Amino acid sequence: MSSSPPGDGAEASFESLVAQSIGNEPLGRLTDLLPVLGRDLSEIDWRIQEILGARYATLSESAQYATQMGGKRVRPLLMSAYYRALGASSTERIHALAAAFQLIHTASLVHDDVIDHSDTRRGRPSMPRAYGVPLSIVTGDYLFVRAFELAAEYPRSVILRCGESCADLVEGEVLQEAGRFELSVGKEHYFRVVERKTAAIVAAALASCAELMGLDAEGIEAATTFGASLGITFQIRDDMLDVFGDPDLMGKPLYADFREGNPTLVSLETYARLDGKRQAEFERMFQLRRKGARHLLRMRELAEEAGAEAVVGEQALWWAERAVRALDSLPEGPYRALLERIARTVAGRRA
Amino acid sequence: MSSSPPGDGAEASFESLVAQSIGNEPLGRLTDLLPVLGRDLSEIDWRIQEILGARYATLSESAQYATQMGGKRVRPLLMSAYYRALGASSTERIHALAAAFQLIHTASLVHDDVIDHSDTRRGRPSMPRAYGVPLSIVTGDYLFVRAFELAAEYPRSVILRCGESCADLVEGEVLQEAGRFELSVGKEHYFRVVERKTAAIVAAALASCAELMGLDAEGIEAATTFGASLGITFQIRDDMLDVFGDPDLMGKPLYADFREGNPTLVSLETYARLDGKRQAEFERMFQLRRKGARHLLRMRELAEEAGAEAVVGEQALWWAERAVRALDSLPEGPYRALLERIARTVAGRRA
Repeated sequence: MSSSPPGDGAEASFESLVAQSIGNEPLGRLTDLLPVLGRDLSEIDWRIQEILGARYATLSESAQYATQMGGKRVRPLLMSAYYRALGASSTERIHALAAAFQLIHTASLVHDDVIDHSDTRRGRPSMPRAYGVPLSIVTGDYLFVRAFELAAEYPRSVILRCGESCADLVEGEVLQEAGRFELSVGKEHYFRVVERKTAAIVAAALASCAELMGLDAEGIEAATTFGASLGITFQIRDDMLDVFGDPDLMGKPLYADFREGNPTLVSLETYARLDGKRQAEFERMFQLRRKGARHLLRMRELAEEAGAEAVVGEQALWWAERAVRALDSLPEGPYRALLERIARTVAGRRA
Repeated sequence: MSSSPPGDGAEASFESLVAQSIGNEPLGRLTDLLPVLGRDLSEIDWRIQEILGARYATLSESAQYATQMGGKRVRPLLMSAYYRALGASSTERIHALAAAFQLIHTASLVHDDVIDHSDTRRGRPSMPRAYGVPLSIVTGDYLFVRAFELAAEYPRSVILRCGESCADLVEGEVLQEAGRFELSVGKEHYFRVVERKTAAIVAAALASCAELMGLDAEGIEAATTFGASLGITFQIRDDMLDVFGDPDLMGKPLYADFREGNPTLVSLETYARLDGKRQAEFERMFQLRRKGARHLLRMRELAEEAGAEAVVGEQALWWAERAVRALDSLPEGPYRALLERIARTVAGRRA
């Protein structure tokens, strides 16, 4: 699940994700959505800038740096598209909430980069690399705090859902930490981590949109399922890209999960599919606290031999289809169509 | 301002603070307050335990460890006493809020110990020492998140005041970081840091009590002034104890501020009062990134020669008296009397 949390690091920007989602086909009615969603995102961005103003230049600057660390608009995009798919003609009601979820996500990236000693994020120096550990810890705290200030304008149920998803995120990080360098944890552990660390925030963000549009429990549940499934798709694809991706497209080096001993689906499926001797070789290397280029390349070779890319890719598609099915209860229309495309694109994205 | 933030590390527990406040005099009517406030604090503690339940033992355990790190009941005590001084016959309305402020304070201690590489807090291994840096960062985040969930049940104005005081706290940490190893920052810088890092949270906690009791702007302002002044008193005394205190009583070694180059009031007054040659000697040692026992003891000697203890002590008393004056608008009674005593005790506390 990569050093980076919630399906990021390799997370697509708004523009590239939408561009990939629409692809080369005739755009038809989807073309009209771009300027509308683009405006939504600008207004959400504006809310983020507005709340981040600090009295001290240092903190303003570091917070700005954090929010510009890329991968920064997928959650607001999903929230805007989902809210509009539910029939809203304006997304104003959810701007502050989308800003809050984006800040929470960003805060978690910053603290994760401290924990993982990451040097790079989306082709730029990571926060701790650029600003040092103390300011990175404090900036992450600041982003969390500002997020909760933004959430304060919503009903208590929405604030609590937001809080619970943050607690999930943190629990996921702890659980991940506990499973490092252990291939025996198995897929159940993997999904427990991903559900908490990646899926919970997306699920809570979309469930809140459904609640604010006045949907009943069933509608909120559908939003939760869509968000969670999409989050899992994102993460599985992220794991794949960390081994089989193009580092130039992603702006960071490959093999972070191998290096840090994260038992991702790629490692778990590789391990499960190798014969005895090579299985032992893979495990021995996986458990090394320090791995050289030789180990990393050999691990990739073994993953290729095990056919992990195809097996894991199928699972990403399965989760994407689960996300698409959860959209069934939504009224048909261009935003629903866009969400379907996004789900399938995420499963095959290249950055 | 010590490696530890908000007047802590050397912060008195509820029992010892109240005992010191009441002293050896005939207790009179103040005796009756102890069981009442003790019950308030038990109920607030219970709210903290209740909200910290996590699905994973590791996180529950680390969060428990953090909340037991001592210095853990002064804010709830002040809130309960202030709320009752305003005429409340029950503190139930503020239990969750007091728990929230206590958790925010604890979260900031945990992250501070990571930033400062502190080994000890109140005679026990610090969080990062006991649980490692990754789990400490994540546990601090968890405590922040749970705090905001607790705050969610209050009016938006209360949540926002809580959030703003957290932002102040973070800004104070950044400002402090920027002034390290610099005696030239002066007293203005010192008070800017202390107002944000220490005073803002106490002020916000008591202002919220006033608001929840229905007081007008003037009453909220008086609570803010009392809280801020008391917070500053606390911090000045903390700075003094770090140089002139008894390490056994405090549960941590002396001279943390000298070592880390924190320009506290003790260092600033020492510097201002020494003659040219010794002033240069003090400054040279203050700026050393690594200081040996020899340096630390010589710095203390110079602080003694400069008469810093008396000068800084007078300032602590001045802030305590400012806090006491801010209580003038409260109805007379035993809780107000207790708050007055606490303010004066804080200025002279020994641990």
